[in-house]
Amino acid sequence: MDILSELKKLSLAALSDALDQLNIDGGCKGIFPRSKNKVIVGKAFTVKFSKVSPGTFAKAADYIDKVKPGEVIVIDNEGRDYCTVWGEILTQVAMYKKLVGTVIDGACRDIETVAKSNYPVFSKYVFMKTGKNRVKLAFVQKPIVVSGIRVNPGDYIRGDESGILVISAGKVEATITKAKEIEANERKILTAIKQGVPLKKARITFSYNFKPPKNENR
Amino acid sequence: MDILSELKKLSLAALSDALDQLNIDGGCKGIFPRSKNKVIVGKAFTVKFSKVSPGTFAKAADYIDKVKPGEVIVIDNEGRDYCTVWGEILTQVAMYKKLVGTVIDGACRDIETVAKSNYPVFSKYVFMKTGKNRVKLAFVQKPIVVSGIRVNPGDYIRGDESGILVISAGKVEATITKAKEIEANERKILTAIKQGVPLKKARITFSYNFKPPKNENR
Amino acid sequence: MDILSELKKLSLAALSDALDQLNIDGGCKGIFPRSKNKVIVGKAFTVKFSKVSPGTFAKAADYIDKVKPGEVIVIDNEGRDYCTVWGEILTQVAMYKKLVGTVIDGACRDIETVAKSNYPVFSKYVFMKTGKNRVKLAFVQKPIVVSGIRVNPGDYIRGDESGILVISAGKVEATITKAKEIEANERKILTAIKQGVPLKKARITFSYNFKPPKNENR
Repeated sequence: MDILSELKKLSLAALSDALDQLNIDGGCKGIFPRSKNKVIVGKAFTVKFSKVSPGTFAKAADYIDKVKPGEVIVIDNEGRDYCTVWGEILTQVAMYKKLVGTVIDGACRDIETVAKSNYPVFSKYVFMKTGKNRVKLAFVQKPIVVSGIRVNPGDYIRGDESGILVISAGKVEATITKAKEIEANERKILTAIKQGVPLKKARITFSYNFKPPKNENR
Repeated sequence: MDILSELKKLSLAALSDALDQLNIDGGCKGIFPRSKNKVIVGKAFTVKFSKVSPGTFAKAADYIDKVKPGEVIVIDNEGRDYCTVWGEILTQVAMYKKLVGTVIDGACRDIETVAKSNYPVFSKYVFMKTGKNRVKLAFVQKPIVVSGIRVNPGDYIRGDESGILVISAGKVEATITKAKEIEANERKILTAIKQGVPLKKARITFSYNFKPPKNENR
Repeated sequence: MDILSELKKLSLAALSDALDQLNIDGGCKGIFPRSKNKVIVGKAFTVKFSKVSPGTFAKAADYIDKVKPGEVIVIDNEGRDYCTVWGEILTQVAMYKKLVGTVIDGACRDIETVAKSNYPVFSKYVFMKTGKNRVKLAFVQKPIVVSGIRVNPGDYIRGDESGILVISAGKVEATITKAKEIEANERKILTAIKQGVPLKKARITFSYNFKPPKNENR
């Protein structure tokens, strides 16, 4: 299975519904595209920042030198809105390195540059104040949390204007298989609707609804 | 009086000021267009969702089969940001049925599809996780509350990039009459301003200000 | 030094970093452009609104007659989201008077008109309900607070899609000098990166990092 290409073709909604049926929580609230290119698909390279005491020297993070082509940089800046961890220089490096995109639980800056580039950047906030001497790199490539969702290195990230979805690496094939069924069903419903079939009937005919998983605790 | 056509011609600001002078609260905070078409005018078809206990089966709502052309679907999902009650299928059904648009005190998904369609969708949030098994249809066509504003079935909804206004059906003609006076006055002020008249003088000449209604409790 | 032209040429990020190195807090959180023209540079004309008791008569403010060409109107409406202090009439007067733009710690309305005009308007919220009889002009041309940042009359305002920066008049030349150094350095880093130099090495070579100021309390 060509996982990345399948993830790109499937809609975010179908993938989200597939995760739902598998009882997996993957939707990251409040993180949206800031760039012209609003679609992102790739494997997570995880980055964690932590706060430093005021007045501490904390240099800008250079982890990007370790990120490989095809990877999405996923930054857990603990939802901080008061300093940025992404801007023009990192966007330029990322494009030079042919990275897939960046997802930030926090803020980015240089929006006018980011907005014009083809490099996808997703963030929760926009703010211009530097992260230098405010936060420091805590670690890379260990589990992080983004908008309440756990992200492991190598998990799949799929995002667009409806938000960011994390698909755990171990479940990605099952998620894709389920999402394809869901999309196929929805296409049948859409076809029926365009022929004038009432939605209720179309949904029953094509089994739109499903029982919730047993151990639902979402 | 051709109410819909008058409501379309008048500005949201003039209608809001007219409601203000009539001591009616109609402005819904934080609900904005997610679609290419950012203007909405029609009569409310009200829909209320309520929460279900985790693990409960709650099928997708099919109320849309009952909505008539010219109606705006107004959904009270109690401002929930964690699950969607609108997406691609409903947008397609709504377009097929020639509905006017949808207003959601909650979230919608499939934004890239919604954004490209001509069907106006207004929401407070964007999130991709389904409402299935999270919320269920409580009722339709009874009074609901949207961003703190009461909406009765058949009330008029007028919205654009500045937000959503609810105009109660019983007051719509008085609101339109007052809004027309306000717009006529503002046009005179704008003409005077373009001739170099100071704003203060223009506002006095054309009676821009008004005493607040007696029982103001907004 | 032609201050306005220098401020326009420099990036918001470089100016913000320069303020940072001078230990000055200038970034206003959550205030973004609502207009087609998303860049603003000028000297602040400060305006303060305060709340009135419900039912009190409080006419629309006419301070705009006192604002001079080249000035940016900066409005401290204490972050109120429930009433607007800016709309179409003021936008028209401002354009007639060739003002530079408006920055609001609060809401504006008539967004569809503002969005089409070339006049830059930045605000925290969008809402259509009038400020008349809700807030009144408290004073003009005295110190105000915008998103927690003090603004004195005559301070420099520089904004774009990444937000609004306040640069105190007494520090503007020092800020520009420092920002130019920062931009020159960043250009060298960008050139090195495009030649394949790792970011870490480029940042060390061109001294990207700096020790925080001693009395840091941000």
